[in-house]
Parts: sequence; C-alpha cells; structure tokens
Amino acid sequence: MKKVTILDIAKELNITFSTVARALNDHPAISENTKKAVREVAERLNYRQNKIASSLRSGKTNVIGVIVPSLQVTFFSSVVYGIEQVMNANGYNILLYQSNEKMDQEAGGIETFLQSRVDGIIASITTETTSFDHYEEIINRKTPLLFFDRNPKELNAPSVTIDDYKGGFIATEHLIKQGYRRILHITAEQDIPIFKDRLRGYIDALKHYGLEVDEQLIIKGKFSLQFGKEVIQDAKSKHLQFDAVFALEDFTAMGVMQQLQEYKIVIPDEVGVIGFANESFGSLVTPKLSTIDQQTLTMGKEVAKLFLKRIKNDQAAPIAEELKLEPILIVRESSMKLK
Amino acid sequence: MKKVTILDIAKELNITFSTVARALNDHPAISENTKKAVREVAERLNYRQNKIASSLRSGKTNVIGVIVPSLQVTFFSSVVYGIEQVMNANGYNILLYQSNEKMDQEAGGIETFLQSRVDGIIASITTETTSFDHYEEIINRKTPLLFFDRNPKELNAPSVTIDDYKGGFIATEHLIKQGYRRILHITAEQDIPIFKDRLRGYIDALKHYGLEVDEQLIIKGKFSLQFGKEVIQDAKSKHLQFDAVFALEDFTAMGVMQQLQEYKIVIPDEVGVIGFANESFGSLVTPKLSTIDQQTLTMGKEVAKLFLKRIKNDQAAPIAEELKLEPILIVRESSMKLK
Repeated sequence: MKKVTILDIAKELNITFSTVARALNDHPAISENTKKAVREVAERLNYRQNKIASSLRSGKTNVIGVIVPSLQVTFFSSVVYGIEQVMNANGYNILLYQSNEKMDQEAGGIETFLQSRVDGIIASITTETTSFDHYEEIINRKTPLLFFDRNPKELNAPSVTIDDYKGGFIATEHLIKQGYRRILHITAEQDIPIFKDRLRGYIDALKHYGLEVDEQLIIKGKFSLQFGKEVIQDAKSKHLQFDAVFALEDFTAMGVMQQLQEYKIVIPDEVGVIGFANESFGSLVTPKLSTIDQQTLTMGKEVAKLFLKRIKNDQAAPIAEELKLEPILIVRESSMKLK
Repeated sequence: MKKVTILDIAKELNITFSTVARALNDHPAISENTKKAVREVAERLNYRQNKIASSLRSGKTNVIGVIVPSLQVTFFSSVVYGIEQVMNANGYNILLYQSNEKMDQEAGGIETFLQSRVDGIIASITTETTSFDHYEEIINRKTPLLFFDRNPKELNAPSVTIDDYKGGFIATEHLIKQGYRRILHITAEQDIPIFKDRLRGYIDALKHYGLEVDEQLIIKGKFSLQFGKEVIQDAKSKHLQFDAVFALEDFTAMGVMQQLQEYKIVIPDEVGVIGFANESFGSLVTPKLSTIDQQTLTMGKEVAKLFLKRIKNDQAAPIAEELKLEPILIVRESSMKLK
C-alpha cells in the first residue's frame, strides 16, 4: 500500500514539497495559479488533505492517548469512559492502548502515541514498571502527561487517584464493626504504592480498634481469581484461623468466595468477604460481593479536567497537581453478618 | 504547547522545508554540510526525529486501528486481545477506539485513525450504523479495512464472524433437548444481521423439532440487563406461558435470571435460561449461566491473520474473504433441567 503524499504532488508539478504544503494550506505567499494546479493534482491523485501536515504547524491533533494495563478490567474501562465523556465534549478524540501489564508493551504504546503526535498522554502504569525512561521521554518533549490510579511518584506528574489508605481502612473497619476479628488480608507481592496504601489502611484499622496485627494473616501474591482460591486452599491446609477476608481487588475476592463455597463455608455467617474496585460482576454473583468503589467515572472526568487545565496553562511550568478522591464503602451480602 | 517542527528548523537555517526533511532522512542530494547544520539545529531545538515524516514516504506506520462499540463488553475486549497477540508478534502496534454504539463517534474514530496514518483498520460496527460513507472513505484511500462480528454486508470487506444462525439453532436445540417446550426468545429491535441470524436459528430449531413458532414469544427491544428484567415483568403481567428463555446476549439473560429469582421462579427447574456471547460474569453467577461461546480469542487472531494476508497481497484486488467460526454451546446450571 502506497499512500499519496505531498511529495507525489510536488514531483508531478515539479515544485517543492514546501510549496505544495503551503498551497494546500492556502498560504498567502503562494499564487492562485499554483494553488489551483496543486488542488487539481491532489484531486486527481486522490490525495487526502493531510491534517498531520497542518498539525506540523499548529502542533495540535486534538487526539489524546490513554494507556492502561487492561480494558478487560471494569475499573480501567470505566475510568476511560469518564475520560471520553469530558474530552469528546471538548473536541478531543481518545485513542486507547493496552499494555497488558507488560513494561515493553507500555513503552511501545508511548512510542506509537508520540509518532501519532497526540496532544497529551494519560496513563496508569503496569505492575512491572520499575524504570520510567519511556515516560520521561514524554515529559522531555513537553507533551502533557497525567496519571490516574497507578501513579509513579518518581515523575511528579499531575494525577488523580483515590485515597487507597482510607479505602483499606474503611474496608477493614466495616468488617470489624460486623463482628469479624481474625481478618485475613491479601495484598500484592510487587511494590505498588496503591496496594501498599491499602495494606497500611488495614493495619491501622486493626490497631485503631485494638486488634492484633498477625503477620500470618497478611498474604502476598500475584493477585487473580485463581490466587484467591489458592489462598483459601493454603489457609485450610495450614489450619489458619480467620473469620473474614479483605482482598486487594475483586477478582481475588471472587476466588476466595468460590473456594469458601467449595468447602461449604457459609458467607457471610462463618467468613465475611470484601473486595476492592467494584467490578461489575460483584452485584451479579451470589452472595453479592461487598467492595470499595473507586469513583471510576469521576476519576476519569477529573483526570480529563486536569488535562484541559494543564494545556490551558501551557506557558506556566506544569504543576504536579494531585487529586485524591474519596473511596466509597459498598456493603453487600458477602460481609453482612449483622442483619 | 508548541511542538518543534521541520518548519522551525527550516526557518532557523533559512532553507526549505523539503531540504530539512531530506537532510533528516539522509537524502543523497543534500550536502554533508547541510545535513550537519540541520542535525545541530534539530538537537538544539529538541526536535524529535519525526517518524510520521518518514512514514509520508514509506506509507507505513506499523500501527493498526481497531474500532469497537465498547471495551466494557468482554466479547469485544477479548477479540481485541486476540488481535493484539498476532499483530504485536508481527511488529504492529494496536490503537483502540470506542464508538460507544454511536455512529458519529465511530466516524470520529475513523477520521482520527486516518489522520494518524494507520496501516489498516479493523472494526465492528455500532448498532445504529446505517450509512457507510465513513467506512467507504477508508476503502477509497486504499487503506485495508476488515470487520469482525458485526460486519456490514454492503461493503463487501473481508470479515471474521461466527455462524450466528447455527448459534441460535444450537442454543434452542439444547433447550428443547432438556425438555423445554415454550421457549421465549429476546432479540434486537434494530435490523442487525447477527441478531436476525440468531432469530432465524431459533425459528428453524423449533420447526426442526416440530414445535410451534409463537410470535408472542419473540420479544424485540433495546437489549440490556434492564430490558431482560422488563421482559419477565411484562410476561408475568400478561400471563404469558413460557418455560425457557433464549436471550440474544448474556447481559439480557442476566436480567431475565434476576427477575425470575425476584419472583421466586426456580432456574432451571421451572424456567431454563441461555444467553449468548460467554461474557466473563456468566461462570461467576448463581446459577451459572449457559451460553454460546463465540471463540473470541480465535476470532481476534483470525482477523489479524486475514489482515496480514491482505497487506501481503497488496497489488491484487482485495478479496472479500469471509471466515465463519463455529459457535460452541456452553452448558451450565441455568439450563440443566435433566441432571
């Protein structure tokens, strides 16, 4: 496939690339005759008015690139929906790229967006992103860069997150108030700030209510539905005593519930379960899964608004604005011991 | 934000755009002195080697645009995952765009992809797409265009779909073989080939097994979880007799199950339910939802392979290859009357 380019028109008319580009953009320095000839050849060759060429001048494409780990996770697709609502209303188109939790794919996405000359990039990093060269390239090019949820503090970029510490605290507090005392917490093995914050919230809630923090009850792993099942299998084989589980995210919590049901352990009477993220399946399963809502739509809208603010204040040095949203406790059947 | 462009370098050195572009691409007609000067200014101005500019010549960006109605639907995000696997392995990056089932947004996505000079577009159309000018523009520009699942036959473009007629047939046949006789079918009010095919399959299965086709049992509407609930509410108020429901897709089937449970109607003993699409929540709910699997990962991989084949045979006229995959019956608890 060979696209017709400005060069093809230039060759055909034996004039320069620059003359053609200026003619197509109605530049006053180009004669009417030349413009007419260029337009005729352009039409004949089926040349499409090249908006990229004009964006070379204005530096604007009105396209924003969004990089997320996976759109199969409701959390991310829902934040993206919020971003789209605000950005579309402001004349921007959103292009999406999935890193699939791989750092090299993430870097490929950034490269692709920069090639496409996007006006800005909004991202949530992968769980394996430990170096940030690819993100620094965005900053060096003075392309606006913002983060939501998974935000690398190293880059000091504007971001919208929720208060994960508070989320961990209120999830644990809710279980305590329902009468649970031996609360198992599943967290990530990787060093990801949001999950560490949730863990800190869990620990502080236990302390706040005078309960013991038992290291045996803090389980680290590669979170997934499968891992949730394994945690319960493992706990059973080790005769670990616990009466509730707070999982770092809903898929893991779902695995916990499935394995408990397999063992005929009654939820929430014998063991209470709460997840995190309010994935869409949580209200469809039996028992319905309690969780922490992250205000995804609001998060998307707020990061979009922050972006619009950022490009308006272009001349000023970018301010590392950090917006923290409140987590919301969603109590459903899986943790309702007191009825 | 003002990006440094070739024009900025040209102005600085008082030479033409074309000279700068050629110098940056090491064109033999440009002197070494000029090239050196261009490189120095480019570096000083922090100009990024513009891959778009070189793609103007090669006509290749190695980026493929994928347009889908919504990535919140497992079906679409799973097909996309299959596309990514094959295309990434072949050196392509995938950019995604959500139409959110709106035709004007779909057109905006195509415009954005064409501006970004993607090497091809893979799409699944919205439920409201009735004219195809925006897709014809892709074809006119000789940019490869392929469809999956929702494929407008008008365009005669290569596509990968599943055999929806057969899917409708085997879903209905399964219910009949489980002993259900009054099977209600929920279909779309819009004129969408895939849903019409499923309906035809339903009708032919009934006929094949000597059962009456009752128009009262064919309900049309804007499919959604909410609509599924409304169908059951409506059926109850009208005292409609039925002992099974085949819904055109899983969210609607889920609404049907929720409303049946609300009415204390036992699934599958009193009423059997089957959906379509094998959404991820189906295996998590109680009872687990029977459905038709559309081989999403295979669909994604096959459409990617068809794309690679299409660009290799670039000189030949594009062949409207249509690949139809086999639907797979997934029997779970919601339709297992015979145990």
